[in-house]
Amino acid sequence: MLDDVIRRKALSAKKASTVLGGASLAKRNALLRAIASRLASETPSILSANRKDLRLAASTGLSQVLTERLTLDATRIAQMIRGVKDIIALPDAVGRVLEAVQRPNGLRIEKKSVPLGVVGIIYESRPNVTIDASVLCLRSGNAVLLRGGSEAIHTNKALVKIVALALKDMRLPAGCVEFINTTDRHAVLAMIRQDAAIDVIIPRGSGRLISFIRAHSTVPVIAHGEGNCHIYVDAAADESMAEEIVFNAKVQRPSVCNAVEKLLIHKSIAPAVLPRIAARLRGAGVVIKGDARARSLDGGILPAVNADWSREYLDLVIAVKVVNDMDEAIAHIGTFGSHHSDAIVTGNTKNAERFLTEVDSAAVYVNASTRFTDGFEFGLGAEMGISTQKLHARGPMGLAELTTVKYVVHGDGQIRK
Amino acid sequence: MLDDVIRRKALSAKKASTVLGGASLAKRNALLRAIASRLASETPSILSANRKDLRLAASTGLSQVLTERLTLDATRIAQMIRGVKDIIALPDAVGRVLEAVQRPNGLRIEKKSVPLGVVGIIYESRPNVTIDASVLCLRSGNAVLLRGGSEAIHTNKALVKIVALALKDMRLPAGCVEFINTTDRHAVLAMIRQDAAIDVIIPRGSGRLISFIRAHSTVPVIAHGEGNCHIYVDAAADESMAEEIVFNAKVQRPSVCNAVEKLLIHKSIAPAVLPRIAARLRGAGVVIKGDARARSLDGGILPAVNADWSREYLDLVIAVKVVNDMDEAIAHIGTFGSHHSDAIVTGNTKNAERFLTEVDSAAVYVNASTRFTDGFEFGLGAEMGISTQKLHARGPMGLAELTTVKYVVHGDGQIRK
Repeated sequence: MLDDVIRRKALSAKKASTVLGGASLAKRNALLRAIASRLASETPSILSANRKDLRLAASTGLSQVLTERLTLDATRIAQMIRGVKDIIALPDAVGRVLEAVQRPNGLRIEKKSVPLGVVGIIYESRPNVTIDASVLCLRSGNAVLLRGGSEAIHTNKALVKIVALALKDMRLPAGCVEFINTTDRHAVLAMIRQDAAIDVIIPRGSGRLISFIRAHSTVPVIAHGEGNCHIYVDAAADESMAEEIVFNAKVQRPSVCNAVEKLLIHKSIAPAVLPRIAARLRGAGVVIKGDARARSLDGGILPAVNADWSREYLDLVIAVKVVNDMDEAIAHIGTFGSHHSDAIVTGNTKNAERFLTEVDSAAVYVNASTRFTDGFEFGLGAEMGISTQKLHARGPMGLAELTTVKYVVHGDGQIRK
Repeated sequence: MLDDVIRRKALSAKKASTVLGGASLAKRNALLRAIASRLASETPSILSANRKDLRLAASTGLSQVLTERLTLDATRIAQMIRGVKDIIALPDAVGRVLEAVQRPNGLRIEKKSVPLGVVGIIYESRPNVTIDASVLCLRSGNAVLLRGGSEAIHTNKALVKIVALALKDMRLPAGCVEFINTTDRHAVLAMIRQDAAIDVIIPRGSGRLISFIRAHSTVPVIAHGEGNCHIYVDAAADESMAEEIVFNAKVQRPSVCNAVEKLLIHKSIAPAVLPRIAARLRGAGVVIKGDARARSLDGGILPAVNADWSREYLDLVIAVKVVNDMDEAIAHIGTFGSHHSDAIVTGNTKNAERFLTEVDSAAVYVNASTRFTDGFEFGLGAEMGISTQKLHARGPMGLAELTTVKYVVHGDGQIRK
């Protein structure tokens, strides 16, 4: 029954995708303008729906992190609107001729960017994803099937209604944006089996969610997984730079995937730098855990257990380990990291280059906060999320990553010898 | 037990991949030269192993198509060697700076191509894949785990031994090329669950194999599926061009995935063109099936059943359907096709452009044989295979498609405001 509902929605999106795939840039931009304008005029109804979700969140005891993600206000809606307008200003991602060759036999071969088709997005509490993701998909000529978190169901319904009205304004099929308006968890399983209609599933969420989807999806997946990000403070680090970078990466917005979760410090600099970093973090309310060597340098550090090294806290918590050398730091990141964003703080160029080469993560940094891993900060102009896998898209995903290619071949009777 | 063997091989490949990922282009090319040279000197032992497989094939009654794929001779080995040398001449696919920006805050961000890591390849009877795939992976800095067809096991063992000797010559870890030397089918299932060590699985084979792998793999997949390729002969087609293209696409090498399997003909041109195409195909021994309208135009056409429209014959068989218009042709291809290679023969530019836009396949052709969908014919210089999916790689896959990206960020203390 639910399976049928989901299949119908997926097929409706597939049908709509062929119309949308043929829509001109002008038409797609007009659609985005209509969405922006309706977001502005319908702000009160969105906030009212959001208050409903927040009341439910309070009554069910949703965590502070998730409640923070769920909350909308006029400023956040204005940010969504600005986001939509920013996307309108970006170059078109589809119809680009990426390569063109004329072969000796006269064949003219073009490799062109085309929409993926139907994108299925599974996400958790942030309702702004409903608009951000829909708009990125629509702008790149893709239909979208959305599955948001149950805790944001009323807000998401209100936002999807706005998109539906904009599609109607533009006489585009309602199937361009399909929304799964049930909180039944079985809907996810039904969705990831619709390989006849959905071209890619983008799951954003916990490692558990991603593993479940990887194990059960028959649709190709672009995982937006956890960020267990590391900063390694090398022996040759500038101490005050290390302090500023660690503080920023942990405290500025702890609930996001590019916040730092682990701090590795070279043993030779740890006695000087660890107590000052620890004091600074503690001043901002950060709980600090650590290994025995870290604890011997700062009495306020709590013991870390083995499970800490692979955990994504998304909170004002960090774990610190004192390492013997960079080998140990790189090996630790390879074993426990999530291949998202990892940084070294060092004044030694050779060490920096080795770290950048050997750490196998979507983004590797020298002397900067991990918090910059973001489509806007990287200059993509927009962001679907951060891919933590290697296939198709890695790191911040923008419009280009929502396309595939097609080889278009013009001949005049060529046959193969 | 077998699971342990496979896991150990996968982990050995992962370990080797970090060494290989750091190997210079000169070193990787020297390795390829060593492989080419050993292929030449060991030709007799390869052919002797191949004869063993061919005797087994004869005794088990392997089909003619699969036996043809399995057979090696001095010419085919010389082709392999030339293939290896061609790859040496190609530009390096890794270490390229694909994009570079300097952000207003001073961050220098480079998007660089890097190896995928470990590539798992599952393939069927063609033993040349053992060399072609290994060499493409090694050249792009990837370790590889191979799982060939049971009917080619002796040939594959001989080829893998040659690669192992070349790795030894170059003092590179043996794990760079791991081979699953059992024909136990459970090995495939064990292999596609090694997501801790393998970065991508490339299955080449039947629709059934691909579906099985998609359903059970926890490793991301790049499917090299079936080619149920179509040629649509439009009302405005040049009749003799249509005949030449269809004949070439069906007869020149029927056992490959870019051979045509289905012929759609506009009703207005069918009376003139179908009998002459049918006579020409029949002259080459092609079995022709068709719908009622096709059979009314040519008495030698056998009845097609519904299952024919989605079948990949890989043989001297074709099915013909007379359609009312291009809408019907495009809808038929969308419903029954495999999104591999589809062609229109027409003198009408508008029809050609509509076909190229609306047919959702990896390669779309106007006035040329579908047989050109191939890395060499497309000018990629080499080919891992033909991806029939949309994610990461679509159409012929070369060296570039065996890489992923990494964002490398240089700062001097930047923190996020």
